[in-house]
Amino acid sequence: MKRPHIVILGAGYGGLMTATRLQKKLGTDEVDITLVNKNDYHYETTWLHEASAGTLHHDKVRYDIQPLLHKRKITFVQDTVIRVNAKTKEVLLERNTLTYDYLVVALGGEPETFGIQGLNEFAFSITNVQTARKIYQHLNYEFSKFTEDGPTSKDLLTIVVGGGGFTGIEFLGELTNKIPHLCKEHDVNPAQVRVICVEASPTILPGFDPELVSYAVEVLQSKGVEFKTGTAIKQCTEDGITIAQGEQEAFIPSKIVIWAAGVRGNSIIDASEFESVRGKIKVDGYLRSPEYNDIFVIGDCSLVFAKDSERPYPPTAQIAMQQGEHVANTLQQLIREKENLTPFVFDNKGTVCSLGHKDAIGLVYGKKLKGKPASIMKKIIDNRSLFLIGGIPLVFKKGKFF
Amino acid sequence: MKRPHIVILGAGYGGLMTATRLQKKLGTDEVDITLVNKNDYHYETTWLHEASAGTLHHDKVRYDIQPLLHKRKITFVQDTVIRVNAKTKEVLLERNTLTYDYLVVALGGEPETFGIQGLNEFAFSITNVQTARKIYQHLNYEFSKFTEDGPTSKDLLTIVVGGGGFTGIEFLGELTNKIPHLCKEHDVNPAQVRVICVEASPTILPGFDPELVSYAVEVLQSKGVEFKTGTAIKQCTEDGITIAQGEQEAFIPSKIVIWAAGVRGNSIIDASEFESVRGKIKVDGYLRSPEYNDIFVIGDCSLVFAKDSERPYPPTAQIAMQQGEHVANTLQQLIREKENLTPFVFDNKGTVCSLGHKDAIGLVYGKKLKGKPASIMKKIIDNRSLFLIGGIPLVFKKGKFF
Repeated sequence: MKRPHIVILGAGYGGLMTATRLQKKLGTDEVDITLVNKNDYHYETTWLHEASAGTLHHDKVRYDIQPLLHKRKITFVQDTVIRVNAKTKEVLLERNTLTYDYLVVALGGEPETFGIQGLNEFAFSITNVQTARKIYQHLNYEFSKFTEDGPTSKDLLTIVVGGGGFTGIEFLGELTNKIPHLCKEHDVNPAQVRVICVEASPTILPGFDPELVSYAVEVLQSKGVEFKTGTAIKQCTEDGITIAQGEQEAFIPSKIVIWAAGVRGNSIIDASEFESVRGKIKVDGYLRSPEYNDIFVIGDCSLVFAKDSERPYPPTAQIAMQQGEHVANTLQQLIREKENLTPFVFDNKGTVCSLGHKDAIGLVYGKKLKGKPASIMKKIIDNRSLFLIGGIPLVFKKGKFF
Repeated sequence: MKRPHIVILGAGYGGLMTATRLQKKLGTDEVDITLVNKNDYHYETTWLHEASAGTLHHDKVRYDIQPLLHKRKITFVQDTVIRVNAKTKEVLLERNTLTYDYLVVALGGEPETFGIQGLNEFAFSITNVQTARKIYQHLNYEFSKFTEDGPTSKDLLTIVVGGGGFTGIEFLGELTNKIPHLCKEHDVNPAQVRVICVEASPTILPGFDPELVSYAVEVLQSKGVEFKTGTAIKQCTEDGITIAQGEQEAFIPSKIVIWAAGVRGNSIIDASEFESVRGKIKVDGYLRSPEYNDIFVIGDCSLVFAKDSERPYPPTAQIAMQQGEHVANTLQQLIREKENLTPFVFDNKGTVCSLGHKDAIGLVYGKKLKGKPASIMKKIIDNRSLFLIGGIPLVFKKGKFF
């Protein structure tokens, strides 16, 4: 009898959690598992703002996938997914085609630019190791160019962060810590550096606790950030951005625009002709595609609604990992032909938003945290992700200590 | 009685040598000396290829000027020279105007682009700390951008060095040492990196010993450099260069073009209405302007011809430092109203061209050197410059050891 074949697409938080849990839960004689990922490494999406600002080397943000896998249980394929053909149960890769009995789609999200002109071409995004590394190199390059006209230049070196959500704010925290070092390295007068955060909502971190938001604003303002809330970005060009507050438009010259405002699903979902909304699939209670019950969708590609809520959970590492673990449990049940599958329930432990290496704000188990305690909690959360996927050895290798 | 005022323009090899020798040779009651420089630091022009390739941090290539000066003898002015008015004995600075009794023009050279279209706009040059730092940051930035499309990109990352003279060849030596590190840092496949040196003469290092030239070609070819000799650069654009061999033209796509082919004099010389050739003044036997005998010109702005030769000495640190020392002696004689000034005679000790950290070629006191001995000699020469200007303390601080 042929063993069922589980194919997992993506080795982010969700996919890697599924894979590492499945190899614990099932024996080599029960199942064949294939994990497909574009790179041979996993990266910590929630740490990319640090690599982007250069406060953490990009190699600290990623780790090799293969050492985490039991070779006899999981085959790793480094390739790029083109499309899923759910009707023929096939996955088309750039260099191969796979067939599956069960599919776990954990492909991650992509930046959402809301059709704003020029963002794709001229803005940078904190999306993966490459784009993060590129942001840091671009920062250095622009700082190094800035002094070329000598120490008497009257221009400003302006950095624009589009979006005051978690990614934007966390990046600003790291960036403002890094700027003094960049100035020293490149002989730039710190008074000539300007950092602007543009947010369309009336406040940054919309929906977050107002007291903690005020704290974040004060901390970042004291580190030199100018906030422009209730302000939309209309256009981005090679030379800067056009912003609008109501009817009033203005141009901000800048060679460094980082777009950190939105996450959509994955274009592979669009290409695969699923029923989807902005590259995301609204899954059933068991995290399955409503069209194909052999396809699980988790992480940034999935839309999960809380009971009696009209808004889906925001895409986070926390929910992706819980989904990964849940799908592993479900797949064990299905393969062992057990009945009464358990529906997925998100256990929201809270959120911490860092404001640089030693400061943060957070709501954890309903408790407000700020400053040093929040910052310590953030590092505990970061280490916990490592622990859940790679155990103590991975925490020692890539963990954040104090 | 008013003390004579000596103004020295430029704190490069020539100007700084003049200043440090003068303060030893004359008392505070004999003379007032002002040293003008754009930056508050001196940089080692002959080490800039290392900072450009990132094999030496740019802070190792420069040192502060003021600690080297006797404050009661020399006033340091950080400012940019606009123009010399020899008729009124004035120097116009960006923020000040100085009058002098004796002037030492040691302003250094500028890149010569021979009117080749696009070089000023799109090529980089190894000219000063800023441009060197920018080259290294640009290299990093282009490497970091290269991997964005994933590890399967079929493009080549092409670096073009225009000019196979000393600067070009020394830069290639460092660059080829650095490339493996850049590849590792940015996940670039080394096989995708291409390094091309374009030289208009039939050979690189024209005029140098042919046996040593062959050695340099072999070493650099083994490190991946493609040489295109007898080939002219016709044009440089944002996307690459057009080269020509005789009638045949070709386009090489490249985002990294380093122009290292020529040095002219200084545009301040042109702006000052001296009789000059490409920003250089053909000085008399005592290194004075033939028009104004209170103006000395040394370093890259001076043209000095060997006895019975039709070709001027090439601009080097060695000749600039000897000129600086000679001018200091002459000024002492003039201020003490001694007669029988000594004419300048260049004592050519030879030349070493490095091919990376551990390899070089050289002709020293007529003796051919290559490999490790030449490389050690190169470091001795580099340390000697430090010693002549700043003594043992500067050698300890910035010296090159093995």
